[in-house]
Amino acid sequence: MKQLHRKDLFGWSVFDTERNLDFHSVLWVRDGGNVLIDPLPMSAHDHSHLQRLGGASFIVITNSDHCRDAEHIASETGAMLCGPAAEEDTFPLSCNRWLYDNEEVVHGLIAYELDGSKTPGELALVLEHTTLITGDLIRCHIGGELCLLPENKLADVDKAIQSVKRLADLPGIKAVLTGDGWPLFNHGGEALHRLARSL
Amino acid sequence: MKQLHRKDLFGWSVFDTERNLDFHSVLWVRDGGNVLIDPLPMSAHDHSHLQRLGGASFIVITNSDHCRDAEHIASETGAMLCGPAAEEDTFPLSCNRWLYDNEEVVHGLIAYELDGSKTPGELALVLEHTTLITGDLIRCHIGGELCLLPENKLADVDKAIQSVKRLADLPGIKAVLTGDGWPLFNHGGEALHRLARSL
Repeated sequence: MKQLHRKDLFGWSVFDTERNLDFHSVLWVRDGGNVLIDPLPMSAHDHSHLQRLGGASFIVITNSDHCRDAEHIASETGAMLCGPAAEEDTFPLSCNRWLYDNEEVVHGLIAYELDGSKTPGELALVLEHTTLITGDLIRCHIGGELCLLPENKLADVDKAIQSVKRLADLPGIKAVLTGDGWPLFNHGGEALHRLARSL
Repeated sequence: MKQLHRKDLFGWSVFDTERNLDFHSVLWVRDGGNVLIDPLPMSAHDHSHLQRLGGASFIVITNSDHCRDAEHIASETGAMLCGPAAEEDTFPLSCNRWLYDNEEVVHGLIAYELDGSKTPGELALVLEHTTLITGDLIRCHIGGELCLLPENKLADVDKAIQSVKRLADLPGIKAVLTGDGWPLFNHGGEALHRLARSL
């Protein structure tokens, strides 16, 4: 796995030939159990790296299109699966826990529900007030610039815009780690504001 | 290939299991012939993407440790190979052109020779005054923060530091695309200054 902007954050990526961008997953190494977010299939090398860093106790899935390899990795690591509460009735996996808006997943990791995206209650996560981790709604197709999921995929454009503005209003966001596209490690709040103003 | 921070810049990457970071290559699409920098082996998908974007007329290799798949890609595309002049006598490939300090490779792309790195006259490139492309000396192991090649690999630490300070003094650098590690698409000059101050 690749070191991200903090010593306790790692990521791994898979290049998607359809969209010509990388999909990303995040690992937060922490006392009390490591957290994986939207885990993609891992190479043997990365899996061994994960084991050396303490395995995983929690897997957060931001939306039903980002289940990726979560079930398999949960079975290998024993991690608890956490999914978006608004998808509970139709989610393709059986989760141990359903996350609601403004819920603390583990200490220091807050889940936010987004409205209007392609799935109900898509989650975004804020780690220790400074790192925003997004699933599908907020993306980065052009290096350094955030963008929205294409309008024809949104369930409700106005609600999606309001959700982006709500995240942009969070103070102190330094990094934005997107599920799809490039990460922004610095000045993430500024990029969120640029995106919100453009909508 | 992945879109970088400009519509005319693309990149592709290979994850290095020894260092746990990505190696990167850059494609600049331009009238007068596309430029590749330190090209890694390409997947069939990326090679086809490159062909659709017009192939390659020039390949710049920043140092002899970054030859990667340049010779093979040159044979497939017909691109001219350009290498660092200070390595002319010992370079592993036969280049069509040797680049000196402050030389315009093609219009808008300036080569700078760096001193004190692990190979003589390692090249860094500045594209249209705003995008710095580095080979080995300047890297990014922690997202958002530039670093130097480890000291035990440097031929001359003081000269390497002077070379970094010279690049940091260039006005208007927005993006820093490293050969090894993460790219910085925004506030690149600020990151270069932080690096220079830390040395």
